[in-house]
Amino acid sequence: MENTYLQSVSYDNGVLKILDQTKIPNVTEFLEITKIEDAWDAIKQLKVRGAPAIGIAAAYGLVVGIKDAPENSFEDFYVFFKNQYDYLATSRPTAVNLFWALKRMDERATKEKDEPVSKIKEALVQEAHFIRNEDEEVCRTIGEHALTLLNDGMGILTHCNAGGIATARYGTALAPLYLAKEKGWDIKVFADETRPLLQGARLTAWELMQAGIDVTLITDNMAAMVMHKGWVQAVIVGCDRVAANGDVANKIGTYGVALLAKAHNIPFYVAAPLSTIDLATKNGSDIPIEEREAAEITEGFGKRTAPEGVKVFNPAFDVTPHELITAIITEKGILTGNFQEELPKLFQ
Amino acid sequence: MENTYLQSVSYDNGVLKILDQTKIPNVTEFLEITKIEDAWDAIKQLKVRGAPAIGIAAAYGLVVGIKDAPENSFEDFYVFFKNQYDYLATSRPTAVNLFWALKRMDERATKEKDEPVSKIKEALVQEAHFIRNEDEEVCRTIGEHALTLLNDGMGILTHCNAGGIATARYGTALAPLYLAKEKGWDIKVFADETRPLLQGARLTAWELMQAGIDVTLITDNMAAMVMHKGWVQAVIVGCDRVAANGDVANKIGTYGVALLAKAHNIPFYVAAPLSTIDLATKNGSDIPIEEREAAEITEGFGKRTAPEGVKVFNPAFDVTPHELITAIITEKGILTGNFQEELPKLFQ
Repeated sequence: MENTYLQSVSYDNGVLKILDQTKIPNVTEFLEITKIEDAWDAIKQLKVRGAPAIGIAAAYGLVVGIKDAPENSFEDFYVFFKNQYDYLATSRPTAVNLFWALKRMDERATKEKDEPVSKIKEALVQEAHFIRNEDEEVCRTIGEHALTLLNDGMGILTHCNAGGIATARYGTALAPLYLAKEKGWDIKVFADETRPLLQGARLTAWELMQAGIDVTLITDNMAAMVMHKGWVQAVIVGCDRVAANGDVANKIGTYGVALLAKAHNIPFYVAAPLSTIDLATKNGSDIPIEEREAAEITEGFGKRTAPEGVKVFNPAFDVTPHELITAIITEKGILTGNFQEELPKLFQ
Repeated sequence: MENTYLQSVSYDNGVLKILDQTKIPNVTEFLEITKIEDAWDAIKQLKVRGAPAIGIAAAYGLVVGIKDAPENSFEDFYVFFKNQYDYLATSRPTAVNLFWALKRMDERATKEKDEPVSKIKEALVQEAHFIRNEDEEVCRTIGEHALTLLNDGMGILTHCNAGGIATARYGTALAPLYLAKEKGWDIKVFADETRPLLQGARLTAWELMQAGIDVTLITDNMAAMVMHKGWVQAVIVGCDRVAANGDVANKIGTYGVALLAKAHNIPFYVAAPLSTIDLATKNGSDIPIEEREAAEITEGFGKRTAPEGVKVFNPAFDVTPHELITAIITEKGILTGNFQEELPKLFQ
């Protein structure tokens, strides 16, 4: 079992392996990377996507980059290390996890500075593994908590992709589905295709199929009918940011799904690692919502499907108010009561 | 004003003009048809779509087809007429309005059988015009009734295309928007793109733009956010069938929009010509829902956007229960109370 799951980022014996997510769902292709330039390119070209996966790829990318660093002195090594660090940092300057992972590698290198350089290199491989394994642990723990809310035989609806290929393994919202599969449960998943960028169709449906999980693809506007038919006993989604009062920003369409779930008395769960909880943001209205270009809607399928010059509103995210959320599931446990009071306790 | 609007089907001096709806929104092209074979082809190839528009095209197509019919006797004429009738009937055997219009032309021909054939031919041109004009009148009357529910300055959300190009003019759900424009009102329309076939993006956005009406295109999953922002004061949609209790079958996604409207306290209106009201259908659960092929979702626009072999649920319609409908707007007036009691009165 352990070796059969699909890892979007892994490292073994000098080789960084990255699942090329730009080719999914049509082609499953792994890049085998031994030069830092190829790691840079994979991050830049979105061949690896998902905040945790990007951080992991950056850490292993740095490992690949310092393979030939001079070993005569820490000072010479560190000049080389910093060069590679700065280079990787230019691959996707807006990705917070990229910098977080590089910084953590830097701290480890500095901490080991009295060791022989060959030992420092080994320590850095270890640190990259730690970063990866900690993310897997966070995801698995979220999945274990979430699983206590689900039962064998349930239908589960999800939106967008909060899945394994965006993380070390398991994903966040999809984590309980993988664990349910490990337990031999019979779970039926409905994946919203998630317009405009179709992450549900391209990624969620794909990765669940890879794992042998029963998944049915629907367009976003079919969710209400699927719920009405009694096919859905729980909705679970990931999130981009949780505000201090429990309001949640996530992929556009999430708010609508939450309203539909409420109308059908279906619990609505948000899987949220602590890294997404931002107590400095008071509530959902303080979360800035990125608006993206019209072409994603008007010619997203490789062909123009709307009139030239049509006005378009294309927000990337929406905000689900806390009162529509049945539970927020974190690696430190499940919150179901007063989010405003419970969220700060997670950080104590 | 009268001549500036866009007619999807018209006839003048021996020429049937049909807007080629398969080329919208990229190209606005009118077919000029003088042979019945081209009318047959236009109906068969869905160049003309929408139940009323198909009926009108069939009536005019028949007019074109009998131009050279023998004029020596009614019997010889009628043999020719029936041949053309039968031929057109094969163009789209499942379109109810096609047969309804052809039958009405047949009745008129028979009724005029004692007239000289040249007069019968003139009567048939007149009958086709009647069919067209009656449909325009039905749509305009629905629009006038609907307009009493709207106000200058409102934001209106619509789903799919219940528009002018599917009818003689005005459409059903879109009729009040055209009339509001004629009155100089400032109306802001939000058009759901309406996956999987994108009738909202391809047709509704296009025809409203042609008429100079302010329209903003959104993906279906953005409707909730647009409502939450306070941009929508009414939802209006067309329908495929109204059951005796007021349950309404319409394009997939309509039920979800109705639930979202209710959650935001926005009135939800259904424009329904009497021809769509079916008192023989007791309620929504008696309406058969067509399921369509997976490819509409997985490769709808010339490019595969979901994994090969993925399971898909693709219902073409859903049912909105009567309790979510604020009013049903017909050419005989507006129903807002007990639909079960009010609907039969329309036919008395």
